[in-house]
Amino acid sequence: MSEVSSVALAGDASHGQTAPGDLAQAVLIAFDWGTSSLRAYLFGAQGKVLSIRSLPWGVMKLPRSAGEGGFDLAFEAACGDWLDARPELPLIACGMVGSAQGWVEARYIDTPADANRLAASLAEVRTARGVTLHIVPGVLERGTLPNVMRGEETQILGAMLDESRSADKAHAANQTTLVGLPGSHAKWAIVEGRRIERFHTFMTGETFAALRDHTILGRTMRTPETPDSEAFLRGVAVARGASEAGMLATIFSTRTLGLTGQLAAEQQPDYLSGLLIGHELSGLEKLLAATGASWNSQPVLLIGEQALVERYRLALAHFGCSHAQTVANATERGLWQIATQAGLVAA
Amino acid sequence: MSEVSSVALAGDASHGQTAPGDLAQAVLIAFDWGTSSLRAYLFGAQGKVLSIRSLPWGVMKLPRSAGEGGFDLAFEAACGDWLDARPELPLIACGMVGSAQGWVEARYIDTPADANRLAASLAEVRTARGVTLHIVPGVLERGTLPNVMRGEETQILGAMLDESRSADKAHAANQTTLVGLPGSHAKWAIVEGRRIERFHTFMTGETFAALRDHTILGRTMRTPETPDSEAFLRGVAVARGASEAGMLATIFSTRTLGLTGQLAAEQQPDYLSGLLIGHELSGLEKLLAATGASWNSQPVLLIGEQALVERYRLALAHFGCSHAQTVANATERGLWQIATQAGLVAA
Repeated sequence: MSEVSSVALAGDASHGQTAPGDLAQAVLIAFDWGTSSLRAYLFGAQGKVLSIRSLPWGVMKLPRSAGEGGFDLAFEAACGDWLDARPELPLIACGMVGSAQGWVEARYIDTPADANRLAASLAEVRTARGVTLHIVPGVLERGTLPNVMRGEETQILGAMLDESRSADKAHAANQTTLVGLPGSHAKWAIVEGRRIERFHTFMTGETFAALRDHTILGRTMRTPETPDSEAFLRGVAVARGASEAGMLATIFSTRTLGLTGQLAAEQQPDYLSGLLIGHELSGLEKLLAATGASWNSQPVLLIGEQALVERYRLALAHFGCSHAQTVANATERGLWQIATQAGLVAA
Repeated sequence: MSEVSSVALAGDASHGQTAPGDLAQAVLIAFDWGTSSLRAYLFGAQGKVLSIRSLPWGVMKLPRSAGEGGFDLAFEAACGDWLDARPELPLIACGMVGSAQGWVEARYIDTPADANRLAASLAEVRTARGVTLHIVPGVLERGTLPNVMRGEETQILGAMLDESRSADKAHAANQTTLVGLPGSHAKWAIVEGRRIERFHTFMTGETFAALRDHTILGRTMRTPETPDSEAFLRGVAVARGASEAGMLATIFSTRTLGLTGQLAAEQQPDYLSGLLIGHELSGLEKLLAATGASWNSQPVLLIGEQALVERYRLALAHFGCSHAQTVANATERGLWQIATQAGLVAA
């Protein structure tokens, strides 16, 4: 029981009380519930975010096991007080909470996927409190190399609603947009209008971590105090120049450039990161070319953690793509849009 | 002290006494001393192998630390009795024992490298017993993507001496041979006559282990009782077909084919192995093409552990290369040749 109390305390400690005025205006509670963290949003009318809470309880890091009520415990810590005050508020979540290891499985819908189709396929789970949480499904693209996403579909749809881009109306028509989401499993989606047509997954971030932490390449590395953009871009250039030989052939140079005194220990992590991101972008460039497209044949949007997105912008510029725009708040925009489309809140 | 005794016992236990007749005929003791194991050969005249001993004491697995005499301890366990009987026998070693972490550093020689140049650059270390061990240097190829090998140079030269191939005399002339050494860091060398001109390193084996053991891909895998050649070749075919998108784009299919019921848990390890080896061979194919060569423009030799070499032969056949020949005993042939060239034994 002491574990429960400390969990409850930790939950309380991570966020203060919400102002009564905000609670009175609220029309929706939404969650971005991933593998390693949980974020809760209190929305007012027209999708205005009134309050945001971040908790460490991702699907793989629950305060207790799922079988012991871990999902309910995390859920209560995130929004129990909101629901005490406003028990009728509708609830929606996206992310790994809808995976086979999540609270309830929200089955993938096939591409092409838009807000309508996602909203029509929400899964539901009844919480211990007796309210219903709606869960956005992931998206599956079938084929020789099937692809799946879960959580990113909501971010991608949200990015297409960025009002700072509404002037160009690119997204309103049936125009193509290329949307990149760097990360452990980087996604690149081809969006037509506001519909996800197809996408690719590059396991760049997770492969980098595995190579750095579990192969000989990590043994000679030292982490620099600040990221080394020059070493990073050197890696991008090498990968681009040797893209045909492939990643398995280039990564050993992280070690051999060190052995021959051409790459300091502190430069090796950023160089390897540049190699991998360079191979990712080389691959993407060829996938685009195979459909007659190029970097400059459509707008390019980036969604993700700021430092990583900046790194991708540097690498993209090396590939001749200097028009990539960063989109903020894509997740909350997407959650609001799907909730609206599903009739959980008024448009 | 008890540790020393148990070490000595373990050493004794791994090999019996050598016949006095063999000891009388012996002309050379040679070692293949790698990262994780040590093999000792007793040679008679004309390079006849009289006795072989395998010990678990690689450079990174010494019975004691190097500073505490670990190299001498392993050396004595491997050949102390041989030297008691024949203290004048010359001694030569190849492999990581000559690395910066080895017994003494045998500096790399630059490509092109042949037996003459290797023999002229042997390093020496004086053992506690007072005899001199000669160590073969590694080979370095400079360039944007420098490459190094240590141990493989001896195997490659040995492979060119395989008498089962002497009929075609391919190696005797200045003809090109492609020599592959699958493994953690697979090497592919372009040999002109008996001279290593250039080579490539693909970190295939180590990357496979890192992906299987330290990424999400391993979570859904089960190791099959026997290797699944069909799943392996499926991976090879997918990698070959999607070689332009690159490895980072194809490996996620190990998971998504599982999620969509198209690849059983037991098939996933061999499928991933096929993907990686397929990307290696695609990259090599393009490197060959860049110099006007192809699989069929020269003999192809493979050196390595039998099951792994068989796997590569399957994959090579998928690429239209069905003439790859497996070479056995390359290491001992190479050690003998370099010792001869160095004048340690009579030719």
